[in-house]
Amino acid sequence: MKLKYIDLKYKPTDNDLVCEYYIEPTDGYTLEEVSEHVAGESSIGTWTSISTMKPRIAEKLKPHVYSIDKQTNEIKVAYNSELFEAGNMPEIMSSIGGNIYGMKAVRNLRLQDISFPKSILRSFKGPLFGIYGIRRMLKVKDRPLTGTIVKPKVGLNEKEHAKVAYDSWVGGLDAVKDDENLSSMKFNKFDKRAKETLKMRDLAEQETGEKKVYFANVTAETKEALRRARLVKSLGGEYIMFDIVTGGWGTLQALREADLGLAIHAHRAGHGMFTENPYHGMSMLTLAKISRLIGVDQIHIGAIVGKMKGSEEDVKNIAKEISDMYISEDKEAKMLKQDWGKIKPIFPVCSGGMHPGLIPALMNILETDIIIQCGGGVHGHKKGTQQGATAVRQAVDAALKEIPLDKYAKDHKELKIAIDQWGFEPVKKGER
Amino acid sequence: MKLKYIDLKYKPTDNDLVCEYYIEPTDGYTLEEVSEHVAGESSIGTWTSISTMKPRIAEKLKPHVYSIDKQTNEIKVAYNSELFEAGNMPEIMSSIGGNIYGMKAVRNLRLQDISFPKSILRSFKGPLFGIYGIRRMLKVKDRPLTGTIVKPKVGLNEKEHAKVAYDSWVGGLDAVKDDENLSSMKFNKFDKRAKETLKMRDLAEQETGEKKVYFANVTAETKEALRRARLVKSLGGEYIMFDIVTGGWGTLQALREADLGLAIHAHRAGHGMFTENPYHGMSMLTLAKISRLIGVDQIHIGAIVGKMKGSEEDVKNIAKEISDMYISEDKEAKMLKQDWGKIKPIFPVCSGGMHPGLIPALMNILETDIIIQCGGGVHGHKKGTQQGATAVRQAVDAALKEIPLDKYAKDHKELKIAIDQWGFEPVKKGER
Repeated sequence: MKLKYIDLKYKPTDNDLVCEYYIEPTDGYTLEEVSEHVAGESSIGTWTSISTMKPRIAEKLKPHVYSIDKQTNEIKVAYNSELFEAGNMPEIMSSIGGNIYGMKAVRNLRLQDISFPKSILRSFKGPLFGIYGIRRMLKVKDRPLTGTIVKPKVGLNEKEHAKVAYDSWVGGLDAVKDDENLSSMKFNKFDKRAKETLKMRDLAEQETGEKKVYFANVTAETKEALRRARLVKSLGGEYIMFDIVTGGWGTLQALREADLGLAIHAHRAGHGMFTENPYHGMSMLTLAKISRLIGVDQIHIGAIVGKMKGSEEDVKNIAKEISDMYISEDKEAKMLKQDWGKIKPIFPVCSGGMHPGLIPALMNILETDIIIQCGGGVHGHKKGTQQGATAVRQAVDAALKEIPLDKYAKDHKELKIAIDQWGFEPVKKGER
Repeated sequence: MKLKYIDLKYKPTDNDLVCEYYIEPTDGYTLEEVSEHVAGESSIGTWTSISTMKPRIAEKLKPHVYSIDKQTNEIKVAYNSELFEAGNMPEIMSSIGGNIYGMKAVRNLRLQDISFPKSILRSFKGPLFGIYGIRRMLKVKDRPLTGTIVKPKVGLNEKEHAKVAYDSWVGGLDAVKDDENLSSMKFNKFDKRAKETLKMRDLAEQETGEKKVYFANVTAETKEALRRARLVKSLGGEYIMFDIVTGGWGTLQALREADLGLAIHAHRAGHGMFTENPYHGMSMLTLAKISRLIGVDQIHIGAIVGKMKGSEEDVKNIAKEISDMYISEDKEAKMLKQDWGKIKPIFPVCSGGMHPGLIPALMNILETDIIIQCGGGVHGHKKGTQQGATAVRQAVDAALKEIPLDKYAKDHKELKIAIDQWGFEPVKKGER
């Protein structure tokens, strides 16, 4: 029995999971042939006809390649959602993002987007807080949230770490995040750091009258990650941070599904291994989408103006995908339609080489529903962390008031120092 | 304080973790500049000088770029192992395989190998069984182990699945593996499948007098993966299968560290997203090495002669890396030295488009310490699964006896059908 999966007349049903792939066939294969291989290997096929295949399986579960664009080498495949275990992201990814990358028939292959049907959507929790929940927690209505990463990445002991965090909070920032390299080190143990840092958080809250939060990095083997998360909760923390790529979907789901009442900050270290080549791997959009579905409350998506890659269009599209409720299909943007149903919108986090001089330019592109994080751009400030933090908030205020940074800096000395030190990117209103 | 990490006179100590990277700088950057960025971002640096850096940190923890090869664009970086949390693979990877891939300064970046120092080696369990333990379990001394994947990938119900497994075992195979797409589906629930399949396993053992094993795919969110693994144990199973890339390091460590007394079969669906481009991502060698360290007993590495990518040299090198106790540095092979200490050697699994006609060619390259898996190459056999399984064992026997397949097939009818159906690759003794 030789199956054929290409069916250009097929219309995806509400029960189908749809994937868009970019495909470059290996020499000697046509796009149609490779489409058959990709659709089959990701569902019910193998390289030869088999005696154990039943007509009812072939009929009910076979995938449909319903779109092939020979100009762009993009194809769309609709999969019956019964091909997947609802609520099991590792299994879903093993199917549609798995063996197909290793086949000799494909030179390059990229999973550009996944459109999840309701039945799959309902099987994941999605974020506990999301944008509106986080804004309520922080009592910040309509400006971007601001944060920093304690620097140096590793090396400070627990008390030094807590002091840097304290300076950041009293300087004006909402959030302090551990570096992704920092978990529980010989010189800076997780438990003691969480305790010291949250103690200083309480002090900063008292002194400023503002709500402050700490993204404690619990990235580890699952059992230990859960223990650390529970410790954070018991110490009065509201947040954990988890590295989704290096920690993995299995642990992220475990953290979310343990229902600890904590918000989850998603870091994405290592994503560039498979998202950076535009012709291979998986898009950052897909990674962010999966993370929202499982239930993180915010995720790093790039900062456009900073030290990390990510074009303006790509970063804007990712921001839109994770913070809207309904996404229309957009061929140019390589985005499928997605009705998010009851899955809450989440915050895009912009980080990596950010400093006050870049904030108005960033806000001009992504507006206010973002979290802006400056690491070196706070602790590198010539007058130290506290004034660096103040300069960040001043830059946000200037942007909200639509006052050019150099003008606003005239009577805001912390900002003045920052832009003298690192310069600033002018923003012309209506430029974009 | 501007740090400098390049130090070509530095000699790595026994306490250093060493990474080899391939680097292509973005236009406008030199290899030295990018080396500084990579070493800094993966340890204690950021993009600007910071007020919070302390001389004791810079002195003690700074990384050393001790080798830069301008011909090959390869660099080696030695990191003080205190930069990492021992026993926490997600954290280690967030550091040395994390943000560095997203930096604007790098066009391409590949982590080619990691040499783990003793202090890190000791913090992981490594495999419970390894090659010798598995051989004792199966009472198979010196031939390759043989296995199949139940096909179609998904679609059979529990009893149909168990029957295909039974046919495979009584036909002569040692092992039956779930497909990576198959976890717990509407039409094939994990618990029932495990029960039915292990029942048929017992029957097959009684009938053949041979030990038979079932690699039950527990890939899922951690809590559920652990529950499924414990169920397998309670049903008399000896093995679980886990998808390391899509499931993640956090869950793999949790499964190993739960000390369930089970062997772990590591599938690698999705690895091609970041291993296939020779200039970017991470090598399959590194992925396999990390898996051995955490403690899988066997891992898919490619089959050279089958449908999956992977050159002969690469696959041979990976096989060597995971099944030897001491690896010497080999520049050509892009392998660093590694003393594996007490971490047991593990089985390379060769799978993907395999059939009896390819087995002698595979064994000619990789010899006998391998697990050979044929999926379609068993169930696609014209006379069905059982004879397909028999043909696989006959092909192994022929190779061990150094008898050409066509000659051996004359009085082995199952093999005859297989090679008539799919052909065979002749092997000349001493050809390689």
